[in-house]
Amino acid sequence: MNEIDLDGLVERDWEEETDADPVRFAMVGLGWWTREQAIPAVEASDYAETTVLVTGSPEKADDVAADVASVTATLTYEEYADGDAVDEYDAVYVCTPNALHHDHVRAAADLGKAVLCEKPLEASVEEAEALVDTCETADVPLMVAYRVTTGPAARRARDLIDGGAIGDVVSVVGHMSDTVLDSVGPDSWRLDPELSGGTTLNDIGIYPLNATRFVLGEDPRAVHATTTSAHEAFDGVDEHGAFTLEFSESLLGSYTVSHSADVRSSLRFVGTEGELTVEGIFFPGTQKVLRLSRGGTESEFRPPSPDQMREEFDYFANHLQRGAAVEPDGAMGVTDMRVVEALYESAESGERVEL
Amino acid sequence: MNEIDLDGLVERDWEEETDADPVRFAMVGLGWWTREQAIPAVEASDYAETTVLVTGSPEKADDVAADVASVTATLTYEEYADGDAVDEYDAVYVCTPNALHHDHVRAAADLGKAVLCEKPLEASVEEAEALVDTCETADVPLMVAYRVTTGPAARRARDLIDGGAIGDVVSVVGHMSDTVLDSVGPDSWRLDPELSGGTTLNDIGIYPLNATRFVLGEDPRAVHATTTSAHEAFDGVDEHGAFTLEFSESLLGSYTVSHSADVRSSLRFVGTEGELTVEGIFFPGTQKVLRLSRGGTESEFRPPSPDQMREEFDYFANHLQRGAAVEPDGAMGVTDMRVVEALYESAESGERVEL
Repeated sequence: MNEIDLDGLVERDWEEETDADPVRFAMVGLGWWTREQAIPAVEASDYAETTVLVTGSPEKADDVAADVASVTATLTYEEYADGDAVDEYDAVYVCTPNALHHDHVRAAADLGKAVLCEKPLEASVEEAEALVDTCETADVPLMVAYRVTTGPAARRARDLIDGGAIGDVVSVVGHMSDTVLDSVGPDSWRLDPELSGGTTLNDIGIYPLNATRFVLGEDPRAVHATTTSAHEAFDGVDEHGAFTLEFSESLLGSYTVSHSADVRSSLRFVGTEGELTVEGIFFPGTQKVLRLSRGGTESEFRPPSPDQMREEFDYFANHLQRGAAVEPDGAMGVTDMRVVEALYESAESGERVEL
Repeated sequence: MNEIDLDGLVERDWEEETDADPVRFAMVGLGWWTREQAIPAVEASDYAETTVLVTGSPEKADDVAADVASVTATLTYEEYADGDAVDEYDAVYVCTPNALHHDHVRAAADLGKAVLCEKPLEASVEEAEALVDTCETADVPLMVAYRVTTGPAARRARDLIDGGAIGDVVSVVGHMSDTVLDSVGPDSWRLDPELSGGTTLNDIGIYPLNATRFVLGEDPRAVHATTTSAHEAFDGVDEHGAFTLEFSESLLGSYTVSHSADVRSSLRFVGTEGELTVEGIFFPGTQKVLRLSRGGTESEFRPPSPDQMREEFDYFANHLQRGAAVEPDGAMGVTDMRVVEALYESAESGERVEL
């Protein structure tokens, strides 16, 4: 392998066109992320549409419905659980406080609906495992909404590394940060450990964790984490974090995350024959940049960077149309939660934790 | 601050021309690094020249002397310690196994010679402290040979961050790797803990550690490290490492290092208002690339990337000519060794170690 045609890689390697109707979604939870990211993404999508809104706030539902022509019903959580408007949607997108995911997924599973559930799957490993069981028992598809892995940047990174572009990967360094108080304010459930299961490692540390696992196909065998807080809004929860993932005798990863820094993300893989960095990898609408260096050659590639949420909904919907299996699946989501639990255990004790 | 004129920054912000003669160096230790990096750098330098070679191998001395016209004497270690050819050099560059540094520095100090000593200062914190005392007692200048901090890339990074280019720094991620067996072979003292004081964290982990301290002016208050080995040549010593540096409640760093990967290095600072990455930062002859992102603006700057070893020798010599204080000084070198010692303690115990 000498020359790599970065431009020649396929944008949607998962796509197969069908004659099926669009998949109709019930949006469960109308918080900031659903309103500002998910619903616009579905409006722009090829295979999905929003037909039902589920929320505890009728006013919020009316506001959102007024702007989305495809909406045919707005439900309270009770109406949703009771099966109201059951014929008006095919799948649910669950984006509520993590500790409520299982309740809402159970309602969907009871109604035979496919489930796209936000990450992390739940607020505890036990509830996440139960959520996966619920979907398996009801035989409904479950996908965890790791938007990164359905977009072209992470998939191309995986293909390049699988193809030997940088030899055997030895080191990974990653970073993700945002300014969460500017997005959700200090009263958000994200800062309540009961509802979230953890703030920064759990909410955004999971991105470099999951993306590393996705790209390399390896799971951590031991971890260490350090967490700190400075801003009063993060009193008692983790505002900043640094963690190490130990994959094998010759593969280690080091990461930093922060909920109080500029919106930035990157993931760098260093191998025995070169280096691949993906800039901007974790955020939905940013231009991604892949930089590959091997020997004396540097290549920079700015792939089409479609909105990650649109790619995620289209990936999920297109697979449902074809009856094809989806990933990241529940097992992948549970493994991430076990790792995050170990990270918090390590941050608490200061000790390396084996998985 | 909106526009940053990256090109306008000064290359040698430390330089002041003088009428003084070049500083004449005795090269103490003629291993791979001295022969292939230090001596060529001094030949290309503006303010230094190599006049004396000190080695345990007369053959090696003759080989090297044949190629370097400025050499006037070759000494054994005993002759050097006895003060032979004492009038033929002004300063020494000590590049021997770490555990021998203090002996050779003591000889130089006894003779009143200025000392440029390779990093890490010694094989143990105690000996490093003793080495610093030796130089202070003899009142000879001591500089630790962290070549990175005398080059323009690290100095510009420091200036940019000091000037507020990325706001308050919150996260740092760094990486350094090389293929040390290809450079020095499996019998090198670098793989002998008695002579080196530690292999990978000590030999190359010290670069991102020192560079982060240099750029930010902050010292770690606690650390964690993980080390692994796979290749048989690294049996019993660290081949790969990952470590976390905890600087404050709102400043954490995560790093990976490997002595068995492609030759790569980078250091990324993420702040409250942007991000600055220096690619290729730790190796002597590589093109450095500074990438600054803030708001929606990305700037890429490829500064002049002079050989780091030449810059280091010229910096040291130019300061000696002027009688100016040098840095990194002994105190900085000792602090790094305390941190590295804590990293090894953490890797051994699995626990976070406070400094």
